[in-house]
Amino acid sequence: MTFQNPILTVDVVILTLAEGQLQVALMPRTEAPFAGRAMLPGGFVHGDPATGKVDKSTTQAALRILKHKLAFTPRHLEQVYTESGPTRDPRGWSASVIHLALHEYAVVETLVAAGRVSLHPVHPTPRLPPLAFDHRHLIDIALGRLKAKATYSTLLAHLLPPVFRLSDLRQAYELVCGTTENKANFRRKMLAADALEPADLLIGSGGRPAEGYRLREDITLIEGLISGA
Amino acid sequence: MTFQNPILTVDVVILTLAEGQLQVALMPRTEAPFAGRAMLPGGFVHGDPATGKVDKSTTQAALRILKHKLAFTPRHLEQVYTESGPTRDPRGWSASVIHLALHEYAVVETLVAAGRVSLHPVHPTPRLPPLAFDHRHLIDIALGRLKAKATYSTLLAHLLPPVFRLSDLRQAYELVCGTTENKANFRRKMLAADALEPADLLIGSGGRPAEGYRLREDITLIEGLISGA
Repeated sequence: MTFQNPILTVDVVILTLAEGQLQVALMPRTEAPFAGRAMLPGGFVHGDPATGKVDKSTTQAALRILKHKLAFTPRHLEQVYTESGPTRDPRGWSASVIHLALHEYAVVETLVAAGRVSLHPVHPTPRLPPLAFDHRHLIDIALGRLKAKATYSTLLAHLLPPVFRLSDLRQAYELVCGTTENKANFRRKMLAADALEPADLLIGSGGRPAEGYRLREDITLIEGLISGA
Repeated sequence: MTFQNPILTVDVVILTLAEGQLQVALMPRTEAPFAGRAMLPGGFVHGDPATGKVDKSTTQAALRILKHKLAFTPRHLEQVYTESGPTRDPRGWSASVIHLALHEYAVVETLVAAGRVSLHPVHPTPRLPPLAFDHRHLIDIALGRLKAKATYSTLLAHLLPPVFRLSDLRQAYELVCGTTENKANFRRKMLAADALEPADLLIGSGGRPAEGYRLREDITLIEGLISGA
């Protein structure tokens, strides 16, 4: 090729449920451009053999970056959309493969405690600091995917502890989708998806314990690792 | 940056309904690597200002390439997935932003007649020639998206003529999804999506004309142009 290839990055929108809100994990950006602003965890895809280490895919790049920068592997990671253009990065034409990561709060909290990320509400009431690049827009794209997929899958279960009640999942659903759902309908829809299994555990709920569920093990695989999934 | 950026391309899976099958439009590949094989229409994203012309996004790159190579603008174009890795292109680490394009047969047929593409069945019985790169895999990814989206949207209407009967849409649905659907249920589901409107036209059907429908104009916008849609 006689021309310069575009910049290729991955950016990860890590979402968790905290204090009744959907919150996003942000890092401080220490380098130019946009030094001093908050940013999504992300970085360059490594494709040049001269650098010594080459990513197997953009999703593997996302996993590498999360591990390196945050010592964190999310429970759920999926590719969402590739945002691109000539003006989104002052260093040149760039494409960012946006990934959505979901995890329960108890684990993300340890990243906050270690000073690696800070959490900021994105839904239903966004309260975000000034962000680097077009990261505000990337968050909106990931949120759109989460809402769309939440209506026909058990995706939101990744935001809950490993064992949860269907009422916990319904609460998460109602928060993310902004609708109320009939209890019996919701139960039928979620169990029909064939992704949940009884955990043979009762979870206390003010004196009246409810049945615990968990995601089937094959559902918790990281999606992007099965290419095209 | 001190390292070489990955190769960034777009590849477009153009699908149409022909002779009761879902068919993909392929071009002959004339250059190395893989010269002589069939390929998806696609090419490099233009991001280097030195080349004179810079794409606004990967979807705009796809539209530019389709216009340039095929003199064709699809009715529906959407970004599907970015496939990437160190071995999919012998020239180096590469990422391809796969796009799915849908259009009615009458128009795609003119491209065939002009010798620009050839059509090959992909579903339900695939009959594909040897393909360049991992294009067989890219077709499978696009097909997976089409099937998934077909179950909860009017997407398949883009494969039909501008005015069609609900029975035409149901036939397309049954072909793509491999299921039969109750006539009344299907009608309710498709009209509930609020994307179809009566065309005030009756379409003849062996003596018994049926009501014609069309996609609402705002639905036929190319998705990728609204970033993140």
